[in-house]
Amino acid sequence: MRPALAHAETLALDLDGGVLKVTIDRPGTRNALSVEVVEDLCALAEHLATRDDIQVVTLRGQGGSFCAGGDIGGFGAMVSADASDPGVSDPLLQSNQRYGDLLVRWNNLRQVTIALIEGAAFGGGVGLACVVDIALATRGARFAISETRIGIVPAQIAPFLIDRVGATAARRAALTGRPFGGDEAKAIGLVSEVYADTTELEAGCDALIADVMQCAPTALATTKALLLRVGKESIDRLMDDGARLFVAAARSAEGREGVTAFLEKRAPSWNLPNDDKKVG
Amino acid sequence: MRPALAHAETLALDLDGGVLKVTIDRPGTRNALSVEVVEDLCALAEHLATRDDIQVVTLRGQGGSFCAGGDIGGFGAMVSADASDPGVSDPLLQSNQRYGDLLVRWNNLRQVTIALIEGAAFGGGVGLACVVDIALATRGARFAISETRIGIVPAQIAPFLIDRVGATAARRAALTGRPFGGDEAKAIGLVSEVYADTTELEAGCDALIADVMQCAPTALATTKALLLRVGKESIDRLMDDGARLFVAAARSAEGREGVTAFLEKRAPSWNLPNDDKKVG
Amino acid sequence: MRPALAHAETLALDLDGGVLKVTIDRPGTRNALSVEVVEDLCALAEHLATRDDIQVVTLRGQGGSFCAGGDIGGFGAMVSADASDPGVSDPLLQSNQRYGDLLVRWNNLRQVTIALIEGAAFGGGVGLACVVDIALATRGARFAISETRIGIVPAQIAPFLIDRVGATAARRAALTGRPFGGDEAKAIGLVSEVYADTTELEAGCDALIADVMQCAPTALATTKALLLRVGKESIDRLMDDGARLFVAAARSAEGREGVTAFLEKRAPSWNLPNDDKKVG
Repeated sequence: MRPALAHAETLALDLDGGVLKVTIDRPGTRNALSVEVVEDLCALAEHLATRDDIQVVTLRGQGGSFCAGGDIGGFGAMVSADASDPGVSDPLLQSNQRYGDLLVRWNNLRQVTIALIEGAAFGGGVGLACVVDIALATRGARFAISETRIGIVPAQIAPFLIDRVGATAARRAALTGRPFGGDEAKAIGLVSEVYADTTELEAGCDALIADVMQCAPTALATTKALLLRVGKESIDRLMDDGARLFVAAARSAEGREGVTAFLEKRAPSWNLPNDDKKVG
Repeated sequence: MRPALAHAETLALDLDGGVLKVTIDRPGTRNALSVEVVEDLCALAEHLATRDDIQVVTLRGQGGSFCAGGDIGGFGAMVSADASDPGVSDPLLQSNQRYGDLLVRWNNLRQVTIALIEGAAFGGGVGLACVVDIALATRGARFAISETRIGIVPAQIAPFLIDRVGATAARRAALTGRPFGGDEAKAIGLVSEVYADTTELEAGCDALIADVMQCAPTALATTKALLLRVGKESIDRLMDDGARLFVAAARSAEGREGVTAFLEKRAPSWNLPNDDKKVG
Repeated sequence: MRPALAHAETLALDLDGGVLKVTIDRPGTRNALSVEVVEDLCALAEHLATRDDIQVVTLRGQGGSFCAGGDIGGFGAMVSADASDPGVSDPLLQSNQRYGDLLVRWNNLRQVTIALIEGAAFGGGVGLACVVDIALATRGARFAISETRIGIVPAQIAPFLIDRVGATAARRAALTGRPFGGDEAKAIGLVSEVYADTTELEAGCDALIADVMQCAPTALATTKALLLRVGKESIDRLMDDGARLFVAAARSAEGREGVTAFLEKRAPSWNLPNDDKKVG
């Protein structure tokens, strides 16, 4: 028996087969990243590291907005707090670091992750869009790296934003704060596809999930981990390790089933005993 | 009192509020990068490092061309010069290194920088387009990494070109020398927007400036400096420093004004005493 | 006299002036990357390192497909082979490493390389598309990073795929395995241009070759080598070396001819004695 998903106050969770649908459930604040939301998303990521029975995680917001960014109300209180006592840790610093943790953890999830973006994706909400594998949006979604318009800096987001859209588009977005729509988000690579409305957005997501489910689960996790190392390690090391991972995958139960099915011109079956899924 | 901008023989300078408009003023050579132009642009960059009262710098060329690249006439004389005497520094080497200095300095300017590109942007002129934050062009502008067509190499430009358009588009442009127009420049990310004519180009630039002016000046400078570090430092260090910079910005006068204005649903005022603008 | 191109069983080679046309000639397997094809492409790359009289290399597949990826039949046999004896080297590991060698060698070729892609470009075939300087495709070409659909991982390809299309498009393609056509390949930067049919594809390639042939051959090789170093060495070192390479190119016979021709408003002639082509 798998451990049940822990209850998360701020998130609605729906697990169906290998697909976990996560909805940030704070529509009253347009799903702003309060301390509680950040903690719940961090805890969920920690749990998902143990769930190799889950292949896909989708992320969206309740009530027509994706995520309006930082919780400026709670944030204002932290700004005003006296942080001059060096013996007391600064809640503002902790909260920003914790948001950075969230980005790192979600970026590194072993599952294939898909964001469905409608309505507002501002500030920290754009950060979430940058750490999923595939971001989808409606044409009417509104994006902005709006931090500098309230005197703060998109600090934790910066590396993930550049990884996603390149330095050029990142400089423009972060140094103007200007809002932009779904089509421009696609043009700069922030999202992969744009859809006319929510119905089409969900259909596009379902089609992607069907694509992912055709792939071998451990091979996906190994591939994702390898892609995340590119640019951070030397190419020689990546290619040496890559060959070793390739051979381990090919000789695993998944690899044998996949190659055999290919040669027999039939669809492979990935319903494999758990022990066979370990690779590399 | 601020020190006045030094006179620059080859540049027309127009400072209005926080916006400095720079025009390379050598229309007879289509604003080619003579030794004098390079020196004037370097000296200006050095001055701008001290000017936190200037938020935006625009760069364009006089007379309908942006910049036709190196000054091949002056260059031909340097090629012919005898550089065999090791006691004498080689003017050709110095001139190329100085152009590299120019790219580094402009890339690192604390101000938000915008290029307005019409007509020719060849060779070294493309380099200038690669080091501003936002490049805008008319549809009729002509770009080319034309160095190899006269037997030389786009050496100083190479890292900035790849940072701007990626390795793929850089390889194509630099290894064919072929000219291309504004639409292709936008498609590969060399420019952010393309406009029908000069009037629209200027209107697009004005709109961008208005966007930038809504942002807090020190937050912009901090954000730009952080974006420029991505890819050059470890992500751990970037995120640690990022959290520290975030907190400093949030507790600065700018941050307090920005957050307060947001919560009071009013526009913030960035007319702050100078000492309050120091962050990080 | 140049040494003749060695005979390669699996490749059709056509050398005309400075242009070598390479066709993978295994239409019965849609030009799958058998051990023999990989060896022949590696050996050819080794030979081309000595051929500074060849400026352009084109790569395509015989019979309407570019390259269907790994040779899954031969591959299945290697998977089944007992690799438990540590004294015997594993043919599967060797074969994957050799494919990695192929990608590195072709990526680093001194010649300007162009791929013409029609029909299938799957798995390892996409890897080939990622290591040429310029990839062209027909609209009807079909691409897929299909490895995970048969339980294996796109390991050697990963760094080159990210270099070509960025991390975002690479994550989507590699983590879904979904096939996509020429237009999407262009949209993500996997290919530079898309054409209606084979005739237009070949015409587009001919136009690119004509562009390349206007450039100085040694300047091209120096430029390509420098572009390949970006991101792998510090910018200071790149710019220092770049200035040295610039000066060497400018003072070479090619550079003197190119600058003189430019000033005399005539086309340069690159038919230079071989000793003058050495730069850097």
